[in-house]
Amino acid sequence: MSDLAAVLDRADQNLPQSLERLFELVRVKSISTDPAYAGECRRAAEWLVKTLQELGFAASVRETAGHPMVVAHHDGASPDAPHALFYGHYDVQPVDPLNLWDRDPFDPTIREENGRDVITGRGTSDDKGQLLTFVEACRAYKDINGSLPIRVTILFEGEEESGSPSLKPFLEANAAELKADFALVCDTNMWDRETPAISAGLRGLVGEEVIVKAANRDLHSGYYGGAAANPIHVLSRILAGLHDDTGRVTLSGFYEGVEETPEEIKAMWRSLGRSDADFLGDIGLSVPSGEKGRSVLELTWARPTAEVNGIEGGYTGEGFKTVIAARASAKVSFRLVGKQDPEKIRAAFRAYVQSCLPADCTAEFHPHGGSPAIQLPYDSALLNKAKEALSAEWPKPAVVVGMGGSIPIVGDFQKMLGMESLLAGFALSDDRIHSPNEKYDRNSYHRGIRSWIRVMDRLAAR
Amino acid sequence: MSDLAAVLDRADQNLPQSLERLFELVRVKSISTDPAYAGECRRAAEWLVKTLQELGFAASVRETAGHPMVVAHHDGASPDAPHALFYGHYDVQPVDPLNLWDRDPFDPTIREENGRDVITGRGTSDDKGQLLTFVEACRAYKDINGSLPIRVTILFEGEEESGSPSLKPFLEANAAELKADFALVCDTNMWDRETPAISAGLRGLVGEEVIVKAANRDLHSGYYGGAAANPIHVLSRILAGLHDDTGRVTLSGFYEGVEETPEEIKAMWRSLGRSDADFLGDIGLSVPSGEKGRSVLELTWARPTAEVNGIEGGYTGEGFKTVIAARASAKVSFRLVGKQDPEKIRAAFRAYVQSCLPADCTAEFHPHGGSPAIQLPYDSALLNKAKEALSAEWPKPAVVVGMGGSIPIVGDFQKMLGMESLLAGFALSDDRIHSPNEKYDRNSYHRGIRSWIRVMDRLAAR
Repeated sequence: MSDLAAVLDRADQNLPQSLERLFELVRVKSISTDPAYAGECRRAAEWLVKTLQELGFAASVRETAGHPMVVAHHDGASPDAPHALFYGHYDVQPVDPLNLWDRDPFDPTIREENGRDVITGRGTSDDKGQLLTFVEACRAYKDINGSLPIRVTILFEGEEESGSPSLKPFLEANAAELKADFALVCDTNMWDRETPAISAGLRGLVGEEVIVKAANRDLHSGYYGGAAANPIHVLSRILAGLHDDTGRVTLSGFYEGVEETPEEIKAMWRSLGRSDADFLGDIGLSVPSGEKGRSVLELTWARPTAEVNGIEGGYTGEGFKTVIAARASAKVSFRLVGKQDPEKIRAAFRAYVQSCLPADCTAEFHPHGGSPAIQLPYDSALLNKAKEALSAEWPKPAVVVGMGGSIPIVGDFQKMLGMESLLAGFALSDDRIHSPNEKYDRNSYHRGIRSWIRVMDRLAAR
Repeated sequence: MSDLAAVLDRADQNLPQSLERLFELVRVKSISTDPAYAGECRRAAEWLVKTLQELGFAASVRETAGHPMVVAHHDGASPDAPHALFYGHYDVQPVDPLNLWDRDPFDPTIREENGRDVITGRGTSDDKGQLLTFVEACRAYKDINGSLPIRVTILFEGEEESGSPSLKPFLEANAAELKADFALVCDTNMWDRETPAISAGLRGLVGEEVIVKAANRDLHSGYYGGAAANPIHVLSRILAGLHDDTGRVTLSGFYEGVEETPEEIKAMWRSLGRSDADFLGDIGLSVPSGEKGRSVLELTWARPTAEVNGIEGGYTGEGFKTVIAARASAKVSFRLVGKQDPEKIRAAFRAYVQSCLPADCTAEFHPHGGSPAIQLPYDSALLNKAKEALSAEWPKPAVVVGMGGSIPIVGDFQKMLGMESLLAGFALSDDRIHSPNEKYDRNSYHRGIRSWIRVMDRLAAR
């Protein structure tokens, strides 16, 4: 049996324990956006440090101004082996609305869904299951060889779901320690259940919360209705005006730095064979929203957006209350592509809001993260080796795709540490991340572990 | 000492106990819109029955499909004395946001505010303090004379703040018992602290909740943003389109039945001497919103409105969540004037919403009450007697005004029981009803009690 085959076998044998370890980590309620769960975030970091130490990593919890980082180092089989920085995040999204979950989001189990075994729970897919595929790949190597084929540094953060405020300062302060030959990032999807994907384009993200204020208190709509400014009306007009009738975003200068996608790339995406109807059918829709005349893949991979992620104002409880609210607020995010500048977009949004305010109304803004889009090379040694390794593991060859989501870390690795990133992950589009009933396929986890074994093997071969 | 003077004196002597009784009633958390407080609503009804029985009323709690009614009867000094039906409501508005209250809303006290003694707490002004002015007026009469100068039936309901769903069926089923010569309704404001007011025009009200739905679950805005319909965007456009740039409501047929206010009425209102700036300055505003070119008094007394009273969708907790919500909802109300038909307005709103829905989006509607506007005669024997009585009590003569709020009962009394209503109340525009820190001036309560004594005395004189 080859060395690689033995390690893969070992991963297969380890699987029941690997699953148990994932369950343990999912049970930790590490919701980073809610300060009430700060202790749970720390507990997740400590659990990871303990786990990595058992594997021979020099691992520690590292303090930040927010939730802590986990940093761990492991030598490779030889001192001149390639050096990878593996990145993942242990924090998870909030779980509301809790009543839509079939089962406690923090009490994971395996159940059958559409003929597949799936692991249920918040964070199973985003990102605890994904980051553990790499940790368990390392475990199989250690079990068989007592060492890893490449040098590995691990960085797990706990604020990915809340804008990563501590990440840049941490990378700056620890650049020498964290610099490696390249980064491996496991927070992305497969193309489909049989086809692994490597993501070469990632949209950037700007988050803004806007609060519109009018009267100095909530008012009775009988006494004041028709005469007093209503912040919900003002906010609705602002949000309604963010898009024109063709779905384009109206902010001044919004499309500066946005280039049309080359025809050959669009042709490659068309060849992937997923129609708009397929993509949207999964989520109960049929017609692409947003900019008219573009495919769903282009809209989500290569076009910028403005989305309202939350809105609140006035009385929202049971029954009815004839109130004119003193304030109304919205959380708005922009997905960026090409060379769109996050801070220019933020400024354009604020200027637009200010320009919409009628007399007596004011607006307050709270920034929530900002990162530009990333375009990785479609063709590099790192990407090609990973493609070979993934293609060997899965039924169909790996494809190179764009990505609608934002992984700001990739830009930071590029800018601050001069490292290229390889984005490969095993999540599926039906994993319901950020939604009730999040899951991760047992097969994603199992073959994900095996995939990293193969990738490490291929990278070690130089 | 005249009979009237003795009764007024007695009311003065009773005041400390009258205040203690108001405190007792305010301590009952009778929030009608929230089913969690159903037991408290019943407790308020029972408290009122007990109190009225002590005064010699034949009083009882009367079941409905919702919160119970209180009905009580008392003979007058003579069997041919005029017969009044006095109406009030014991239910109160919700208290959120609770953190904006200076003190527990259900732990009333008296404190000084701007040099006046005010009674604090939810319902002190709307409507527990107001309804008790009449009860305590009866008490002073009973103490002195052992009887009341007029025949009195009392009707207190417990669903006024939630659209009065049980009221019509109850009036229908008990029409013979409740019919009187006229109704007295105490749920309105003074013109100012020195000037009592009788309301002759009341706007109607239609409430609607609309829920816009798109995808079959909440989505990650990275994977789906730009391609999936966002219900918050759709709802924002719907709400933004409710008014045109001149502040007029855009619904088809909305202004059918709305007449321009006669110039002499507008002149009377102008002579009241309150400028738009005064009215709006109290609430931190300076410019009338709504239809352009009309005064605040006209906008709030004689013009219809569309107001969004609440909106909710997506993530509204701490921090940020890049989600595209599966649904978004708004509570919308319309204030009606003239002959606007509530059900036509409701239908026009629903048709408008449906016409705005893009592909894949649906809307669900929940009605919350509907009542037409009321215009009472500006000149009747009942009104003129009440004007005299109130003018005798307060520093300045009573004025006849319009009213922005809705008191559907007045229309029901007119239509179902053929009774004219007299609307007189002692609340002030700075009472913060429906808002945190609701209060009722000690003076409103005290002179309110004395006012009803004078009104009963004047009505008994025929």
